[in-house]
Amino acid sequence: MSWVKVLIGSLCGAAVLTVGILLGHYAIDKGSPVPGWLQDVSRDLDESLVQDFLAEVDNKQIEGFLRDLTKVPHMATTAGDEATVQYMLQRWQDPESGLDRAWIEQYLVYLSFPDPKKPNKVTVVAPNTTVLHTAREREKSYGPDQDDPEVVQPYAAYSPAGTQQGKLVYANQGKPSDYMLLNKTLDLRGTIAITRYGGAGRADKAINAAPYGVVGVLVYTDPLDINDGLMSDANETYPHSWYMPPSGVERGSFQTDYGDMLTPYLAAKEGTYRIPVESITGIPPIPIQPIGFEDAYVLISQLGGESAPTNWQGGFNCTYNYGGPGFKPASEFNDSAVKLEVFNYAELRNSSNVMGIIRGSVEPDRYVIYGNHRDSWVHGAIDPSSGTSVMLEVSRVLGRMLKQGRWRPRRSIIFGSWGAEEFGLIGSAEYTEQYYTKLSERTVAYINVDIAVFANATLKASGMPSLQNLIFTAAKQVKAPGLDSTTVYDNWLRYSNRTSPAHGTVPRVGYLSGAGSDYAAFVHYLGITSMDLSYTYDRTKTKARIYPAYHTAYDTFDYAARFIDPGFTSHQAVARTAGNVLLRLADSLLLPLNCSDYAESLESYLATALELYQTSGAPPSISIEPLKSAVGLFRSAATQLDQFIKSSDLANEIPLKVRRINDQLMLLDRAFLDPQAFPEKYGFRHVIWASSSAGNATFPGFADAFARASSSGLAGDWAKAHHQLSILSQAIEGAAHTLLDVI
Amino acid sequence: MSWVKVLIGSLCGAAVLTVGILLGHYAIDKGSPVPGWLQDVSRDLDESLVQDFLAEVDNKQIEGFLRDLTKVPHMATTAGDEATVQYMLQRWQDPESGLDRAWIEQYLVYLSFPDPKKPNKVTVVAPNTTVLHTAREREKSYGPDQDDPEVVQPYAAYSPAGTQQGKLVYANQGKPSDYMLLNKTLDLRGTIAITRYGGAGRADKAINAAPYGVVGVLVYTDPLDINDGLMSDANETYPHSWYMPPSGVERGSFQTDYGDMLTPYLAAKEGTYRIPVESITGIPPIPIQPIGFEDAYVLISQLGGESAPTNWQGGFNCTYNYGGPGFKPASEFNDSAVKLEVFNYAELRNSSNVMGIIRGSVEPDRYVIYGNHRDSWVHGAIDPSSGTSVMLEVSRVLGRMLKQGRWRPRRSIIFGSWGAEEFGLIGSAEYTEQYYTKLSERTVAYINVDIAVFANATLKASGMPSLQNLIFTAAKQVKAPGLDSTTVYDNWLRYSNRTSPAHGTVPRVGYLSGAGSDYAAFVHYLGITSMDLSYTYDRTKTKARIYPAYHTAYDTFDYAARFIDPGFTSHQAVARTAGNVLLRLADSLLLPLNCSDYAESLESYLATALELYQTSGAPPSISIEPLKSAVGLFRSAATQLDQFIKSSDLANEIPLKVRRINDQLMLLDRAFLDPQAFPEKYGFRHVIWASSSAGNATFPGFADAFARASSSGLAGDWAKAHHQLSILSQAIEGAAHTLLDVI
Repeated sequence: MSWVKVLIGSLCGAAVLTVGILLGHYAIDKGSPVPGWLQDVSRDLDESLVQDFLAEVDNKQIEGFLRDLTKVPHMATTAGDEATVQYMLQRWQDPESGLDRAWIEQYLVYLSFPDPKKPNKVTVVAPNTTVLHTAREREKSYGPDQDDPEVVQPYAAYSPAGTQQGKLVYANQGKPSDYMLLNKTLDLRGTIAITRYGGAGRADKAINAAPYGVVGVLVYTDPLDINDGLMSDANETYPHSWYMPPSGVERGSFQTDYGDMLTPYLAAKEGTYRIPVESITGIPPIPIQPIGFEDAYVLISQLGGESAPTNWQGGFNCTYNYGGPGFKPASEFNDSAVKLEVFNYAELRNSSNVMGIIRGSVEPDRYVIYGNHRDSWVHGAIDPSSGTSVMLEVSRVLGRMLKQGRWRPRRSIIFGSWGAEEFGLIGSAEYTEQYYTKLSERTVAYINVDIAVFANATLKASGMPSLQNLIFTAAKQVKAPGLDSTTVYDNWLRYSNRTSPAHGTVPRVGYLSGAGSDYAAFVHYLGITSMDLSYTYDRTKTKARIYPAYHTAYDTFDYAARFIDPGFTSHQAVARTAGNVLLRLADSLLLPLNCSDYAESLESYLATALELYQTSGAPPSISIEPLKSAVGLFRSAATQLDQFIKSSDLANEIPLKVRRINDQLMLLDRAFLDPQAFPEKYGFRHVIWASSSAGNATFPGFADAFARASSSGLAGDWAKAHHQLSILSQAIEGAAHTLLDVI
Repeated sequence: MSWVKVLIGSLCGAAVLTVGILLGHYAIDKGSPVPGWLQDVSRDLDESLVQDFLAEVDNKQIEGFLRDLTKVPHMATTAGDEATVQYMLQRWQDPESGLDRAWIEQYLVYLSFPDPKKPNKVTVVAPNTTVLHTAREREKSYGPDQDDPEVVQPYAAYSPAGTQQGKLVYANQGKPSDYMLLNKTLDLRGTIAITRYGGAGRADKAINAAPYGVVGVLVYTDPLDINDGLMSDANETYPHSWYMPPSGVERGSFQTDYGDMLTPYLAAKEGTYRIPVESITGIPPIPIQPIGFEDAYVLISQLGGESAPTNWQGGFNCTYNYGGPGFKPASEFNDSAVKLEVFNYAELRNSSNVMGIIRGSVEPDRYVIYGNHRDSWVHGAIDPSSGTSVMLEVSRVLGRMLKQGRWRPRRSIIFGSWGAEEFGLIGSAEYTEQYYTKLSERTVAYINVDIAVFANATLKASGMPSLQNLIFTAAKQVKAPGLDSTTVYDNWLRYSNRTSPAHGTVPRVGYLSGAGSDYAAFVHYLGITSMDLSYTYDRTKTKARIYPAYHTAYDTFDYAARFIDPGFTSHQAVARTAGNVLLRLADSLLLPLNCSDYAESLESYLATALELYQTSGAPPSISIEPLKSAVGLFRSAATQLDQFIKSSDLANEIPLKVRRINDQLMLLDRAFLDPQAFPEKYGFRHVIWASSSAGNATFPGFADAFARASSSGLAGDWAKAHHQLSILSQAIEGAAHTLLDVI
């Protein structure tokens, strides 16, 4: 054959081969075709996107948000609040924001206000009548423009109105033990008690007083508790430092439950049944009013009677006496009584939550919720607008990634800007009541960032133990503000740590055992895995109970920008950490929730419970064995699930496998709910993290019931303790069963 | 070219082409490989397997199971019960059974028994002392061997022990209105009341009596209510027919709640807290004892006093008088009193559930539960062993298919043989308490078949409306027993139907609004979509309250085989229908639950509620609008979900889509739970299907509260009615939100 023939032959052969290859590749079906969704369903978190996110979080943006939000006072449901509602809504509804949808959810809730025309008043009456400066005028001299008198007047929300007059006594923090001690020395009937913040809940200072016949209560912030003892108006306090000025008055909600008080367990809508106002419990039965420490000094320094115990002494340069009752005979006030006039009123008002969502691409029916309240007592730069600014920045950066087509989360993200938190976590509580089932079935986790920055030393985190490792992971990827080569994690580890049996020395993550912010309904009512983040103090440098301008008119942009977080880099670090957590929860193929870390916490609680049990004097009929065995079962179930996860190749196995495991992890906290567990605690159903008064780091129902029974020795109390033990054991065992192999 | 060259050239070309095809097909990757699980994840129910199942369900097998199970009396926790435990366990544990696992779950529960050494006794005392035949001896003469006196002696479980003596009165059914009427004529203090079954709950006959001073109660089954008036021992009753012999005594549990009474909301384990026995509520405060109608006739026919109203007259050939109190002066008993001696005692006993499982292949974390109780009052051929035999047959056929490799369900199947149902649904209730979270999160549906066959006329079904269409589908595939060319569905349609706005004339599916069998905890406590199936009467042929041997010693294999279901074809039809439902729930890609049918039921309830509201005299402050709008939202949400399903290609779309929709369908009933809704009804949390006393086909809490408020007119009662309206509206609205697009 000639080379031509060879060439032709080869060309023909090649052509035939090509046709064959093409036929083989395209014309013959390989069983089933590869579906388009296959890659989506197994896609994991993209670490480069996390890096993009971290890089794009901008401190200047946060500063801008904070400036905007704090322009006017925005106490819940006032005009200023409505302005912030519109501000949030417009940002999230703007097509440029990238969010899929934003809207308002409104509730009609029971709120308490001061009367703008009749300021509450404290007077030392004849013979030497002295009207104390009301805090309002005082604060005004330093604060920015305060054009709405309704929202700047200091008062105790939910204090009843009324005029009361009586001799003054000093009752320390207004704890039951304080009044009990005081009552041993003095007849408290008809007196007015002055108390300082701390030690007891706000409302409790009045609730504890009433049984002794006290007719009115004053409450102030002692310089020792908030200012590290400093109190000079001239150079030591704001605007010269972050410390509270003498005229600063801490406002607050004076109630013990949370959520709208007239609609327990029901969303407060227009036609909703409301309990009679007379049926409300957990609010002050007698008038109570907060005052500044400047005014408190005038009163306390002239009090007569015996000197109070050492641990009742505060920061004033005088001896704190019990009161005669009343003032020293030699003082300028002599025999005077103190008159308290409170003109508060309560009414139904519309409160708004602003909601924004990003729809998940693969599992839209799984929610990661990120929220903070929007309402403040006055300008609320730190509380809550530091958190709101952080949330706006997180949503801005994520929205931008979305808008640019760089990203869509696997799961849905819900942003919530809650209303009326300051009055008792009302917006978030009503939201969870209205959407109880949907949220409980679908929510992976709730992230709360309220006061984002208390101070600029270190990260502080609280939450369920299953989130601990996720927070660590996130914090390791963020630079600590002001520290060039240190991560938020390493810096945190330095400030606050503990030894974990499994992980060695790790930063300390607190527990969400109270109702301090909007996580309460998520944790305690819905049993949703939740966390709360902030940047906080160097405790070696201050003993302040909280940042000093808290709930005063001085919590302003200027205060935040000059004393709390100059440069807003701590805000930035919180936004990066919280956003990183959010991204990981939304995008990880396997949910970053660790059940073995939960077991570690239960074991630590068990150890304390066993000690308490040993010394409690419990009758032998009450065995602790069921609790021990429940925690043991939980541990072994957690180990099994972890091993099962490790031995799996989740990205390549049937997608219902990772969904199944994720459901186990997501729903773990739900197993700890028992609506019968705490009949006397409104909205508390989580048997591990409910509030407790016994003061032991262990299971709350167990701790309280055993403390009561140990102290009373009554058979009925031991029965209740046994009941709590059974409720607890069953819940932990039930939780363990959800972690074991599913069938 | 020669033909050889052409041949060689062609062959070479073909070879090259083949190589090309092979290379193209196998060597070049089409993006990602097709994963092996792809077919599994989208596989739907196989109709040919359903046909195999139906064909293999065998009436002879069912008969054999029934014969085995009824060999000895098997009252809960007795030796006979233990024998059935072992029987079930061995069958399900046998490797040949095909089940993956079977085991026992034990609880320590509070049960009430007669004293085997001191039979309860009813005596007409001097002057003409007559010891009535105790039902035990009477029944024995017809029944099979009854070797365990403990379990055959008739008694009222949970009746207190005690000896009471007094003049006899006739109190009809022992309803509140019956005693009220009787009390107008007679002084009831110190009397013994004789009542007939029906109209009021068993315990209520004594609970309602006590406030009037009645000291003891007898209860019997009137021939009018159970025997269509027939009562002759000689030829009209068993063993001559299915009617109850004169000596037959209906036993039962005389309590009003369900679950173990000492461990409310807690699984009754060894160390579990138990309430004091004195704290038990809802049980008879005075002794009560059931007797046969032969004995009742002796007493009633001689009662003196005025004749009772027409609707109090029963089937005896005598006038039913109120009693003098006591007997006619002219009667043989003359002035005699009646003495009631009850020696019951209560104690903690171990009760077993036998569990068997088949692990799901694709979604093992989704459960279809099929259950029935195992304990009986005596031999319990019909109640419950007809149901148990059906369950054994369903599990046998499925297990065989599994063993032969023909089938494995997509979802997991759990079989439960519950203990101590007769004492108050105890086994199933404790099971749901122990595994509350796991079951609530994962259970698709619960199927209950207790008394499988009451009679052999027609299918009877009750359950949530979302199951209606599934039951219809299953019933259409089963031949009606004894009717060659009719399906169970068509036969059912003929006996009992209603007009559905959406579907026209359809068989009537009842609601599970009480606590009649083991579905109670699933429906009312867990909010799991549930159903109950049986074969029942031709109501044109009998007015029997229930099958006549119910809860007597005559409920035997002989009775079942000769009078209830000769040939066991009705059992077979029930097994086929229930098994078909089970298969469809376990295997269908899309869960066969219909939310629009749920909307139809809510709309029908709403229509009745609106009528009640109109005539109730409710104050204008109580608006019905929230309820109307909630039902409206539910309807539109259901329509949306149905359209979304219709527009989907679920087998080819991302598998998490069908899982998401299935979760919406599965969890729908959970949304109707509210643990605060019925504080006075133990274990009732489902606001649509809870029990109601108002007797209207509408929302129970609403109906009862409006009835009470309408009648009392008290502001407090109207407040409660308003509260119920809000609870209900919020639950329905919350349910609607779970059906809407998930975000």
